[in-house]
Amino acid sequence: MKVAIVGANGMIGRKLAAWLATSGQLAGREIESLILVDALPPSSDANPSPQAEIETGDIANARFAERILAGRPDAIFHLAATVMGQAESDFPAGYRINFDTTRGLLDAARRVGEGYCPRLVYASSTAVYGTPYPEVIPEDFFHTPQSSYGTQKAMSELLLADYTRRGFVDGIGIRLPTICVRPGAPTYGSSGFFSNIVREPLAGREAVLPVRESVRHWFSSPRAAVAYLVHAASIDGARLGERRSLTMPGISATVGEEIAALRTVAGDKVVKRIRHEPDPAMEAIAAGLPQRFTTDRADALGFRADGLGLGPEGSFDDIIRIHIEDDLGGTWAR
Amino acid sequence: MKVAIVGANGMIGRKLAAWLATSGQLAGREIESLILVDALPPSSDANPSPQAEIETGDIANARFAERILAGRPDAIFHLAATVMGQAESDFPAGYRINFDTTRGLLDAARRVGEGYCPRLVYASSTAVYGTPYPEVIPEDFFHTPQSSYGTQKAMSELLLADYTRRGFVDGIGIRLPTICVRPGAPTYGSSGFFSNIVREPLAGREAVLPVRESVRHWFSSPRAAVAYLVHAASIDGARLGERRSLTMPGISATVGEEIAALRTVAGDKVVKRIRHEPDPAMEAIAAGLPQRFTTDRADALGFRADGLGLGPEGSFDDIIRIHIEDDLGGTWAR
Repeated sequence: MKVAIVGANGMIGRKLAAWLATSGQLAGREIESLILVDALPPSSDANPSPQAEIETGDIANARFAERILAGRPDAIFHLAATVMGQAESDFPAGYRINFDTTRGLLDAARRVGEGYCPRLVYASSTAVYGTPYPEVIPEDFFHTPQSSYGTQKAMSELLLADYTRRGFVDGIGIRLPTICVRPGAPTYGSSGFFSNIVREPLAGREAVLPVRESVRHWFSSPRAAVAYLVHAASIDGARLGERRSLTMPGISATVGEEIAALRTVAGDKVVKRIRHEPDPAMEAIAAGLPQRFTTDRADALGFRADGLGLGPEGSFDDIIRIHIEDDLGGTWAR
Repeated sequence: MKVAIVGANGMIGRKLAAWLATSGQLAGREIESLILVDALPPSSDANPSPQAEIETGDIANARFAERILAGRPDAIFHLAATVMGQAESDFPAGYRINFDTTRGLLDAARRVGEGYCPRLVYASSTAVYGTPYPEVIPEDFFHTPQSSYGTQKAMSELLLADYTRRGFVDGIGIRLPTICVRPGAPTYGSSGFFSNIVREPLAGREAVLPVRESVRHWFSSPRAAVAYLVHAASIDGARLGERRSLTMPGISATVGEEIAALRTVAGDKVVKRIRHEPDPAMEAIAAGLPQRFTTDRADALGFRADGLGLGPEGSFDDIIRIHIEDDLGGTWAR
């Protein structure tokens, strides 16, 4: 089994690479080679596996993509993306990074020919949907993305389905919930605060909460996201039919529930590091967030947050515990 | 009012150009200039207006698109497309002609800048939808295109909405029904026979009907399509909200009803020129055709088949009469 990760330096890419390097197998087969592809060279601390081959370049570039696929990887994870904020502020960059990479990769697979048809796992997003939302959003809810990021993800899902229909790839798109807790520096996009108000207090720093506690949204941990990607690489594509993208399971929680979970797991002193500073602009954005999805198809296909035997993710308490275990070495600033 | 038609040599493009040349106005304003753009030079018999400027080139080419938009047309009709059959048989050509043209045009409009925001009317298609269909397909039915053509149209609709949201164009996509009766040579794609079995008998030639008379589909005349395009250029874009594409009104009819209409309008002798030759492959394709759509939004926005005062289109009888009037000079082979 030859595996390639495109967008390997991102937060999820690094966690997936580390899991694959440790596990040594994917879809029940031994991993012979692992190619880590990214537009930028990896930082020096990111070497999940001495056996992994590092490739730096733009997968939208036909020659580079051809080189990556020359060894005919059996499974390709396409995680390359820029965030919603950059896709809005640098419009051409958003299309280049979030859409041209998908098209470049698919076209390179098509050009290999000779029956080559790799499993392509594409990290999509619930941003393909748009308001007005029903309280619970069904998977076949009409796509009206309200951002360039969501547009690029929806267009990529369409391409993935068409290239799959034609037999150029065996594609599966998985619409990931908002990943929480996202490790690293605080971010200030439309959903950054959901992670900031857990990560920063646990690190002994203050965090700003710009919205009311009643705001509800849809989450999963980085660990669950990796489990979904790994599972997507292993299922029988024929079971998906023509709708090749699936909404992944998540936890629907309010900010208030999130804070209560932080109190349960880490205590009141940590919770006191959250500063409530309502921001009308952020309130308006938060009002347009999706709150809950049905995930019947993903459930039936066996997508589970604890799919790698890494423990349950049934509530926001678990999401916080997973952050402490996976990103904080089991401890926090008390 | 400066007007440009991209894809001006196609069947609808020529009829639209002729209508604009005759009318001399669009959206209540006098037409100062009309640019007819196509990838191929027009045939010698296609000169709808001596005043029209002819431009031959690929609108997906940034330099060419820049030149076309240099004069800042107020209204642009984007009709450039290849048919479903070619988009399947020549996969890269389908994406180039049906998608890269849309992106090229939108990006050229964005690069003009300085507040330039033309009305862009995009000819989309009901092929953005896919089976399994309900009996009547609502406008917010999930997009699952089942052809590369439908994929390219759905991706173009997404781009149109995003570029509109960002203020680069004021876009409206109109999903045209299957156009019937299509003048010209017989075609043998999935919907060609609907036109063939009217056009050919009226011209004194035999036509093959490869499906059962119970097959139902969704139609409008070329004249209605032109009326929809013209109306789309004139309405207030703000009334569309974020869903910038609309399903156009049509006539739902079975092949049996179509044949009965031909008998009513042209007599039994003409109908006898239809040869029934069931083809299992065509039957299978026909079983997947959409049968009827709701068009509430288009109705509320004033889209009407007789919108140019050109007479009603209430039944298939009208569709056949329109063909005889507009394409056969009022007569047929009796």
